[in-house]
Amino acid sequence: MSSKDANTDCLGWAARDASGVLSPYQFSRRTLGDNDVFIKIACCGVCYADVIWSRNGHGDSKYPLVPGHEIAGIVEKGSVLTFNGVDYDGTITKGGYSSNIVVHERYCFLIPKGYPLASAAPLLCAGITVYSPMMRHKMNQPGKSLGVIGLGGLGHMAVKFGKAFGLNVTIFSTSGSKKEEALTQLGADNFVVSSDQDQMRALARSLDFIVDTASGDHPFDPYMSLLKTSGVLTLVGFPSEVKFSPANLNLGMKTISGSITGGTKETQEMIDFCAANKIYPNIEVIPIEYVNEALQRVVNKDVKYRFVIDIENSLK
Amino acid sequence: MSSKDANTDCLGWAARDASGVLSPYQFSRRTLGDNDVFIKIACCGVCYADVIWSRNGHGDSKYPLVPGHEIAGIVEKGSVLTFNGVDYDGTITKGGYSSNIVVHERYCFLIPKGYPLASAAPLLCAGITVYSPMMRHKMNQPGKSLGVIGLGGLGHMAVKFGKAFGLNVTIFSTSGSKKEEALTQLGADNFVVSSDQDQMRALARSLDFIVDTASGDHPFDPYMSLLKTSGVLTLVGFPSEVKFSPANLNLGMKTISGSITGGTKETQEMIDFCAANKIYPNIEVIPIEYVNEALQRVVNKDVKYRFVIDIENSLK
Repeated sequence: MSSKDANTDCLGWAARDASGVLSPYQFSRRTLGDNDVFIKIACCGVCYADVIWSRNGHGDSKYPLVPGHEIAGIVEKGSVLTFNGVDYDGTITKGGYSSNIVVHERYCFLIPKGYPLASAAPLLCAGITVYSPMMRHKMNQPGKSLGVIGLGGLGHMAVKFGKAFGLNVTIFSTSGSKKEEALTQLGADNFVVSSDQDQMRALARSLDFIVDTASGDHPFDPYMSLLKTSGVLTLVGFPSEVKFSPANLNLGMKTISGSITGGTKETQEMIDFCAANKIYPNIEVIPIEYVNEALQRVVNKDVKYRFVIDIENSLK
Repeated sequence: MSSKDANTDCLGWAARDASGVLSPYQFSRRTLGDNDVFIKIACCGVCYADVIWSRNGHGDSKYPLVPGHEIAGIVEKGSVLTFNGVDYDGTITKGGYSSNIVVHERYCFLIPKGYPLASAAPLLCAGITVYSPMMRHKMNQPGKSLGVIGLGGLGHMAVKFGKAFGLNVTIFSTSGSKKEEALTQLGADNFVVSSDQDQMRALARSLDFIVDTASGDHPFDPYMSLLKTSGVLTLVGFPSEVKFSPANLNLGMKTISGSITGGTKETQEMIDFCAANKIYPNIEVIPIEYVNEALQRVVNKDVKYRFVIDIENSLK
């Protein structure tokens, strides 16, 4: 099958309605044009946003819907990707990069040689979403103190970046179930169960920065009071509302900022940083047939810390 | 009467209970020490915080209570104030400053020669509270767009600073009663009644920065949606809560920051900036006997835009 006619025979798994149940779905793309790039998808990360879209959580889903936005693939032979003025194709490796790419919506990024495709996929959403606000707020300065609310796909990447930057990292979680692993495997300095008021009080005015990855509803005042003067809480999750007392913002000139993914330049920078510092997401690789159970486990927060679908070997 | 024994015979107007009604009150201070500075108070601005403290709004007021924190005075003869290594006293004028000072709680600042004492007083609270976050967020760059929520003591100073910095200034008010004056006298570029949804919609994603001076409860989502990407809303008022949708923060990586007064260095800088650029608060000078009516008019938002009590001529 040549690259040209491959587009008439595409296979995905689609949700057909708001139940969000995915099943095989055959579809066509337009014939490859001269400025198109043919990418063979190898891996795809599973994000909570995929649950929202599959189940019409925002009320604007259009069915059939093939979710997935953390995608790693290979530029197909005969198709050339030009990146920063250098041509990449399926056979040639140049400038420290292989021909492998990762894709977030319509943007393609190059994967440094030797960085696994399955590990690269989650960088495009979980990775960049926490990396971007950390860089914007200068949280790559050793010795600063970082709080991470929620230890899921985004949270565990914030911990890894924090340790790579030389920060003192405290994880806030609703349960203690991930404590042992967080301290030993992820290397966090401190683990706090957020309902433990003594532990929370002990951290008053001690943090420079908090990355809030929790999408479930939670109070903000207890966390705002943990920030130092000029401290910043960055929200990257989508709880149903943000509510807090003005005094917790005004006294100590604190900041709440929002963020969602990041720019193209810093995304490539983040991928290169991960490769140079051997930072890999903790992933559970699954076949596509497991995706519905995986989506439900994402809802149940039962994943350490990101599912990655092995598209190459399970969708042929 | 010498400076030394003046301290045994101080006169203020104090609230005796949570009614907040002020009446004359005689009290003593400690005898002047070698490192004390004797200041004769000439003027005092009236701020909404004075209402809160007088009426025990925060639940921690101690009576008798003499409110007032925007104070302009004169260093008394025989008392020397050392500022930036230069001595100032009641007779000598040095370095472009007179011996007049303004006081905010325990800090003293020098007033440039020729700047009226009554105008200086409100700079210490209304002025610095909006100047500080504007400078922190680089809102002194000509051409940027500023929104000001609430046209009271703080809001009208934000407009004046905004125009001095070369910004495009839009005022948001609950009523149109101040529109004509805001556009002609204060020089604002645009005046929007916040309940007018057409006017609000027309400004979607148009503002770099919003200074929110409103202490009454108000929604935040309509204002967040007026900010450009990376836009900042700074809260300087104290509504009962801050509540908004995460999407209005995350999409467009927007920021809500809090602020209250400012540092000593930037306060002197702000006073000097006002003198150099002929920026004066719009004030209504009143005798101390009028203070109870004035406090009620502050509650009723019936002041353009700051009361200043003529202490020198009414408390002898």
